Amino acid sequence: MALLPSYVAGEWRTPSGEGVPVRDAVTGDEVARISADGIDRAAALDYGRTVGGPALRELTFHQRAALLKALASHLREHRDELYALSAKTGATLGDAKFDVDGGIGVLFAYASKGRRELPAGNVYVDGGVEQLGKGGTFLGTHIATPLRGVAVQINAFNFPVWGPLEKFAPAFLAGVPSLVKPASQTAYLTHKLVELMAGSGLLPDGAIQLLCGGAGDLLDHVTPQDLVSFTGSAATAARLRAHPAVVRHSVRFNAEADSLNCSILGPAATPGTAEFDLYVKQLVTEMTVKAGQKCTAIRRAFVPAELMDDVAQAVSERLAKVTVGNPANPDVRMGALASLEQREEVRRSLKALLATGRVVFGDPERVDVVDADAQRGAFVSPVLLRADDPARAEPHEVEAFGPVSTLMPYTSVEQVVELAARGQGSLAGSVVTGDADFARDVVLGVAPWHGRLLVLDADDAKESTGHGSPLPGLLHGGPGRAGGGEELGGIRGVLHHMQRTAVQASPKALAAVTDRWVPGAPRSEGEHPFRKSLAELRIGDSVVAGPRTVTDEDVAHFAEFTGDTFYAHTDPGAAAANPLFGGIVAHGYLVVSFAAGLFVSPEPGPVLANYGLENLRFLTPVKPGDALTVTLTCKQITPRAGADYGEVRWDTDVTNQDGESVAKYDVLTLVAKERVR
Amino acid sequence: MALLPSYVAGEWRTPSGEGVPVRDAVTGDEVARISADGIDRAAALDYGRTVGGPALRELTFHQRAALLKALASHLREHRDELYALSAKTGATLGDAKFDVDGGIGVLFAYASKGRRELPAGNVYVDGGVEQLGKGGTFLGTHIATPLRGVAVQINAFNFPVWGPLEKFAPAFLAGVPSLVKPASQTAYLTHKLVELMAGSGLLPDGAIQLLCGGAGDLLDHVTPQDLVSFTGSAATAARLRAHPAVVRHSVRFNAEADSLNCSILGPAATPGTAEFDLYVKQLVTEMTVKAGQKCTAIRRAFVPAELMDDVAQAVSERLAKVTVGNPANPDVRMGALASLEQREEVRRSLKALLATGRVVFGDPERVDVVDADAQRGAFVSPVLLRADDPARAEPHEVEAFGPVSTLMPYTSVEQVVELAARGQGSLAGSVVTGDADFARDVVLGVAPWHGRLLVLDADDAKESTGHGSPLPGLLHGGPGRAGGGEELGGIRGVLHHMQRTAVQASPKALAAVTDRWVPGAPRSEGEHPFRKSLAELRIGDSVVAGPRTVTDEDVAHFAEFTGDTFYAHTDPGAAAANPLFGGIVAHGYLVVSFAAGLFVSPEPGPVLANYGLENLRFLTPVKPGDALTVTLTCKQITPRAGADYGEVRWDTDVTNQDGESVAKYDVLTLVAKERVR
Repeated sequence: MALLPSYVAGEWRTPSGEGVPVRDAVTGDEVARISADGIDRAAALDYGRTVGGPALRELTFHQRAALLKALASHLREHRDELYALSAKTGATLGDAKFDVDGGIGVLFAYASKGRRELPAGNVYVDGGVEQLGKGGTFLGTHIATPLRGVAVQINAFNFPVWGPLEKFAPAFLAGVPSLVKPASQTAYLTHKLVELMAGSGLLPDGAIQLLCGGAGDLLDHVTPQDLVSFTGSAATAARLRAHPAVVRHSVRFNAEADSLNCSILGPAATPGTAEFDLYVKQLVTEMTVKAGQKCTAIRRAFVPAELMDDVAQAVSERLAKVTVGNPANPDVRMGALASLEQREEVRRSLKALLATGRVVFGDPERVDVVDADAQRGAFVSPVLLRADDPARAEPHEVEAFGPVSTLMPYTSVEQVVELAARGQGSLAGSVVTGDADFARDVVLGVAPWHGRLLVLDADDAKESTGHGSPLPGLLHGGPGRAGGGEELGGIRGVLHHMQRTAVQASPKALAAVTDRWVPGAPRSEGEHPFRKSLAELRIGDSVVAGPRTVTDEDVAHFAEFTGDTFYAHTDPGAAAANPLFGGIVAHGYLVVSFAAGLFVSPEPGPVLANYGLENLRFLTPVKPGDALTVTLTCKQITPRAGADYGEVRWDTDVTNQDGESVAKYDVLTLVAKERVR
Repeated sequence: MALLPSYVAGEWRTPSGEGVPVRDAVTGDEVARISADGIDRAAALDYGRTVGGPALRELTFHQRAALLKALASHLREHRDELYALSAKTGATLGDAKFDVDGGIGVLFAYASKGRRELPAGNVYVDGGVEQLGKGGTFLGTHIATPLRGVAVQINAFNFPVWGPLEKFAPAFLAGVPSLVKPASQTAYLTHKLVELMAGSGLLPDGAIQLLCGGAGDLLDHVTPQDLVSFTGSAATAARLRAHPAVVRHSVRFNAEADSLNCSILGPAATPGTAEFDLYVKQLVTEMTVKAGQKCTAIRRAFVPAELMDDVAQAVSERLAKVTVGNPANPDVRMGALASLEQREEVRRSLKALLATGRVVFGDPERVDVVDADAQRGAFVSPVLLRADDPARAEPHEVEAFGPVSTLMPYTSVEQVVELAARGQGSLAGSVVTGDADFARDVVLGVAPWHGRLLVLDADDAKESTGHGSPLPGLLHGGPGRAGGGEELGGIRGVLHHMQRTAVQASPKALAAVTDRWVPGAPRSEGEHPFRKSLAELRIGDSVVAGPRTVTDEDVAHFAEFTGDTFYAHTDPGAAAANPLFGGIVAHGYLVVSFAAGLFVSPEPGPVLANYGLENLRFLTPVKPGDALTVTLTCKQITPRAGADYGEVRWDTDVTNQDGESVAKYDVLTLVAKERVR
């Protein structure tokens, strides 16, 4: 097969030279040759910065989200092409789905989050507005804007589709172009993915580039607004993190490294309980999916000392049913490792682990295979080890990146928390228990060492996505040995590609910067703003209505009508003793109801509905005789893509006859984009 | 004077050896000698981890906040001692207040934020709960728990009080012990600060340690749960960032480095406008406060080309009035640089800048001083430069860390945005303009290169804290040359000291971990929960009330009574045409009012008031004839320190006769800690 081309500076370019062969993990046949000789890496970065970035920043968050959704659909239509190539990496169809469908799922998830959780424009406001002076003329808030560089994404061999997509989706949504560098072993699959992405015609020029082959001088050319994210070994992570250009320019560097993840069985989960079975089943799944080549897989299985034998036996029985062989054969449950080199690496690590542990199941040196040549393919047996002295170093430090786990005993919560920490930082951990108190103690004890923790029990087992599956809405990454990175986590992953900036300004200037009205910014009173369509409405459009006096009769009647006869509204003697009121007060619900009666514009018009209310605070008690005035101001306008209406948030301030605010809140409405004809 | 002792492992320890002299910036006299020879740095880190961390983690956020407040008060009582020593660093009383009062202000601010914005326990829940399966049995959220290591804080010489305190406060609130290493030049002042802190008796053992003298092998001993934060030069930042132990353990590294911050005058701000005067005044202030030794000071002053002469003249006139000399003399406006070495450094940088610019004001080599010896003290004149070709490299790359700024012309928004970016990353920038559109265009253009931006205009001038002042609630740090770090920013700075962990669990287990009720977690119905004091109330305590049928008459009456005669409630024909309702619907405010009438417990009891409501969403229209049931569940309990009540958040779910949710929200109440006797 020919040399894998790279996709840089808007073109597919074939490298010069011979390249090196990439082999089918199952047959050992050459699948492709790989090289990046002659590919101008500096020019690729420059293209991303000068073509890709500006094009992405022209789009709003919602437009980018819509493109992600379309891209996800496009890839889904072509997923069979990706599945087919996956088999050459040693993956079963199930493994391929985990990789391919998982990756497409990340795109869909970010498309949805982009539409629902990001604003209509392209400036993200992070957190609230702080009043920085007593007078309210000086305000502060934080905004996030896209970095002006390229997200350099250096991926691992084990997830050639999910890996690039989980890095691409948040970068794209943030407005930052991606340069993808796949690992050589499985680069042909990532190449196919990028071919599909680029061929979709959906993405702006420069939004994605692909560099097949070695990174070469790539990092020499990074500048302060670029980002580097890496998934792979801790040793490579350390080398890249300390790269002179990365260090000199304080380049954001994110690493996910393999870690010695643990799974903990709770003491109450004895044989016969649902949790015992869940633990065993999950451990076998984590050992065998992707032939254990998952950076989140369980390497250390902690079980109560008295359950060691039971667990060893139950896991062995299940492992015995795992057929190993040609992943294209539907009877095969576990395929090959990604290469013969990986198998050598796994065997080397196993030797180190055997210094402490002994084999409970499997033979590190041989395996029966179905429908394949056990010598040419990178096959290995699942291997369960047992280390009865958990204080020994090896099981906490040596990772065999394949279908290998070590069982270890523990005798108390404190001990298992301490043992888990010996991994020195993990991507994922799990606790399998029906005892919520045990779950809490373990989770809070081991959390500082983990990016993600799963509590598995009979309640969530059916819906659980499992120990090893990162989810787009949840953080992926872990401290220490796991690389210290953070990816995904919903919008958090988008913000990692943006610069957070504190902005201090007068209300007028802050409203202009954030496109949101803030207290003190200009208000415009004219036609009732409820008469205006989304197209006509502007930030700051206001209506002031009132006053309306609240009478004794109003309060008494509201109590009777609603049934809310709380003593502070009905019993003068008891109300007088209330430390906050000192007498009869109007119901808060009465105040907001009267306010609505004041600001409403009753005739049919662009405002379709009040769909909610946020941040309501009752600030001053309203006593009978108080006169209420309400000021409603258009605060934020969010047209909804694909609908003929959008969301409008109204700042609402109800004041009394002394000008004191008695209640403040945001009213949320749906407003038609155009006036009703 | 004697050798400065270090405060490590619970004791004041005097180093061995002679040490090197630290000199008074004004007189050149020796103030102290400094050395860390013989101080066991590894033992200090170990003490922090094994004594300080556990002691801090025993406390809740609110307890730590209360200690910060007490500490702030204690330091305020002793601030004169700090002022007195400040003069030796070259600081005027005004400079000393900036440093000392500023640092104490950070403590007060974090004390307040800790009480108001952090929960009652010591687990922080970051963001909302995501339902990860359709059935609601599998949920995800993020928690933050304190890192188990030590926050190693390596400070700069220019803010010997504020610098350590702005790093200490968020670490302490997070539950992480601090090890402070001051810069030698002004270490005697930080030593005094830590002496006061330790002497206050307020802080748990090991919560703060002080290492005077060189860092030595300190970083060799960091482990994955430690943090390193550094303020100082970019060169040192790069060295520390690439330290082998920091890299190997993915240690969180935060740097603030000096940057070439800019201030931009808007084109409308011509002489005679308020903004012109504000620009000139601010520039002079930033040049002269702390003798320009602020990492946030203005180094590049961009002004419209046609205003260059006006600005040069106005700034020069103001600079001419700045008296330089002994900072202890009340007539002196600007003191000395921190040392003669610093003066040499400033003069060297000035020479490089003069390759491009010319001097508009000041003489780099000499200055008239009041009440001091100009040779023995590190005095320098304020120097205003002018570079008429802003395309030259030097003004964007060379920083003179003293009272030095360079004026440069620009001709368009695009150009000034591009010029600002040439600083390659800044801590702070400012735009001085009354034109909100110009402000928006500049802010959004330069934001990716800045950690903080100030828009100064006539509206906020009176309350503005100025270009150079980091505030506890706002981010301090900047990308690229500024170090790529983030400090302060309110609770963000606390979270930087904690590990964020995604937790996936069943509702029951998640409620146990987070100490918050979540949908699907067990509910307990017994005595009405409004009858229970804070001491008796438990997460999950519930009341279910109803049903109550909403009648046509109810809707008509509510419309009439409140005045909310919106057509969807009153006009069947018009309501039928509403795309969301298709007929008369009850007011949302009617629904929540009736719900309150159902769940209320009218007699006097522990519930004192409903002080607000959050996240209200109307999910299904309520039609006349629908029967409403409300389920109210205790979700979160937050005792208020120093009060006899606390806050209780109630999950509220209003359903119709078909079990559909029509409205969901949180009701916020104040509840007495003990039953009313």
